[in-house]
Amino acid sequence: MTEDGGRSRVVTWEDPLIGAELAKTMSGLEYMQALLDGSIPPPPIVNLMNMRPTEVEVGRVVFTCEPDESHYNPIGTVHGGLVCTLLDSVAGCAAQTTLPKGQAYTSLEIKVSYLRPVTADTGTLTAVGIVTKPGRRVAFVDATVSDAQGRLVATASSTLLVFPVE
Amino acid sequence: MTEDGGRSRVVTWEDPLIGAELAKTMSGLEYMQALLDGSIPPPPIVNLMNMRPTEVEVGRVVFTCEPDESHYNPIGTVHGGLVCTLLDSVAGCAAQTTLPKGQAYTSLEIKVSYLRPVTADTGTLTAVGIVTKPGRRVAFVDATVSDAQGRLVATASSTLLVFPVE
Amino acid sequence: MTEDGGRSRVVTWEDPLIGAELAKTMSGLEYMQALLDGSIPPPPIVNLMNMRPTEVEVGRVVFTCEPDESHYNPIGTVHGGLVCTLLDSVAGCAAQTTLPKGQAYTSLEIKVSYLRPVTADTGTLTAVGIVTKPGRRVAFVDATVSDAQGRLVATASSTLLVFPVE
Amino acid sequence: MTEDGGRSRVVTWEDPLIGAELAKTMSGLEYMQALLDGSIPPPPIVNLMNMRPTEVEVGRVVFTCEPDESHYNPIGTVHGGLVCTLLDSVAGCAAQTTLPKGQAYTSLEIKVSYLRPVTADTGTLTAVGIVTKPGRRVAFVDATVSDAQGRLVATASSTLLVFPVE
Repeated sequence: MTEDGGRSRVVTWEDPLIGAELAKTMSGLEYMQALLDGSIPPPPIVNLMNMRPTEVEVGRVVFTCEPDESHYNPIGTVHGGLVCTLLDSVAGCAAQTTLPKGQAYTSLEIKVSYLRPVTADTGTLTAVGIVTKPGRRVAFVDATVSDAQGRLVATASSTLLVFPVE
Repeated sequence: MTEDGGRSRVVTWEDPLIGAELAKTMSGLEYMQALLDGSIPPPPIVNLMNMRPTEVEVGRVVFTCEPDESHYNPIGTVHGGLVCTLLDSVAGCAAQTTLPKGQAYTSLEIKVSYLRPVTADTGTLTAVGIVTKPGRRVAFVDATVSDAQGRLVATASSTLLVFPVE
Repeated sequence: MTEDGGRSRVVTWEDPLIGAELAKTMSGLEYMQALLDGSIPPPPIVNLMNMRPTEVEVGRVVFTCEPDESHYNPIGTVHGGLVCTLLDSVAGCAAQTTLPKGQAYTSLEIKVSYLRPVTADTGTLTAVGIVTKPGRRVAFVDATVSDAQGRLVATASSTLLVFPVE
Repeated sequence: MTEDGGRSRVVTWEDPLIGAELAKTMSGLEYMQALLDGSIPPPPIVNLMNMRPTEVEVGRVVFTCEPDESHYNPIGTVHGGLVCTLLDSVAGCAAQTTLPKGQAYTSLEIKVSYLRPVTADTGTLTAVGIVTKPGRRVAFVDATVSDAQGRLVATASSTLLVFPVE
């Protein structure tokens, strides 16, 4: 991804189905570690939103994100959708770290609370997803986004369905 | 916004603060109508997510969205963040249509339920935001996303703070 | 349930496990119809909260509720917990009407928006639960509470897990 | 509140408007401390749900709750409404501890995740409400319910409107 002069960005990505296929051959933790070390290409949305994983362990993942002007809403701040995307990502990935090979997940719902506005000057955002209860059928995750000063920017809770890969 | 050959997009946008300043001189409905007819440039996030408003009235707005591969998550479908962004957009804009000049809003929270997966083959998404209760201090909005066949893809509810522009 | 002079109520109920056992021998719709016609005793919480089912069909149920002073919170209105209990009840019961014999459900989460305050003078509340998407593994339900004038008092969305009875 | 032989309870309470009036003469922390030490009578819902406050400080409150058979739902467990009521209570009370005299609050919404079922055998529940962001216009609170073994039973997040007492 590069910035091109004035107000445009070139966003590039790789085939997202490569990673999705590889996921079936690994545990969730192995898959997340492969995303972290770059042996699996990042999914497209990650580039669009300037996000990347920085820490992965069982039941907990951390992402960082660099919001810029391309993420702005009509009221002069970064759109809440960026924060939602970031929170949904760490929620899903945290749940995935608890899954054995042969199990997959899908998000059922997420609730996001917007505690503070985000602007292009906010700097790097740090998002943490923590599994509050793993399970064979359902996983629950809480997540937060903090700014560079460590202040809470947003919180979220998400419910995810766990199911065997067909 | 153009597609460039393989797996890249050039995303362009205009200064988002122009629209934010103009918003202060209009009622919320006038502002949304100006976004709809193009006399105010679309905010950047709208281009990133391939969204645009198609209907605006007091207490109700409609957006369409064309998800593509650039919005994919690591599990082979469009990332939930796109649906969240779309729902958060129609929720905010629906609330805005109820505000007189001199009043502004900010989203406090949104909850999104993911009823069906979205892929690049889903086609055009239609999102509708409807104010369930307007107010001088708080507005409540419900929103839905449907696919080209009219099936519900996602639902949401959002709470928004209403306050005087300083 | 009777009112006893000043500020006390005698709350009575029947063994809740009788109905829970009978549920295993019926479809969800049959069970809800038996609750409606009184051939299964009402569960205890129904008496505590002055609630009762009044309409049952596949994917939709209606309850009424008579809030009184025993449901008050410390800030001079009916506690939000009554509205939550009512919404959680119609959400669960609506989901249940979609289940064949041998399937059970449990609530995973509910989000409740409080649009208007409730007092003992509000009169009869009417709650409606509608299944937005049934499923073999998950059901989604939206629900509302309205007052005697038909004004929305609260809205909710809930996710429920569906599973085979063991 | 007393238990009367078989399956009935006598629930008693005091005029809830006494406490609501006194609240206007105190800071939120003073009011919560008066509820804790018994100098203000408990609000009615507290008796109905067998709840009571046990710890109060700025930005954090703790309640305990003794669920019994009178709180059962039709599927053989304690109704989710009890857990919602408990979570809504600690959320509201935690927000209240941050308010100066002359400020009041009302709950705008709450989302509750049900992590584990509750039965009459679960024993004492402990609920904790923690303000994640106080404010002059809005407060955000997270809350949890744990069982006697310290396992998470439910989590919640709530948004509350803060406003001057008229």
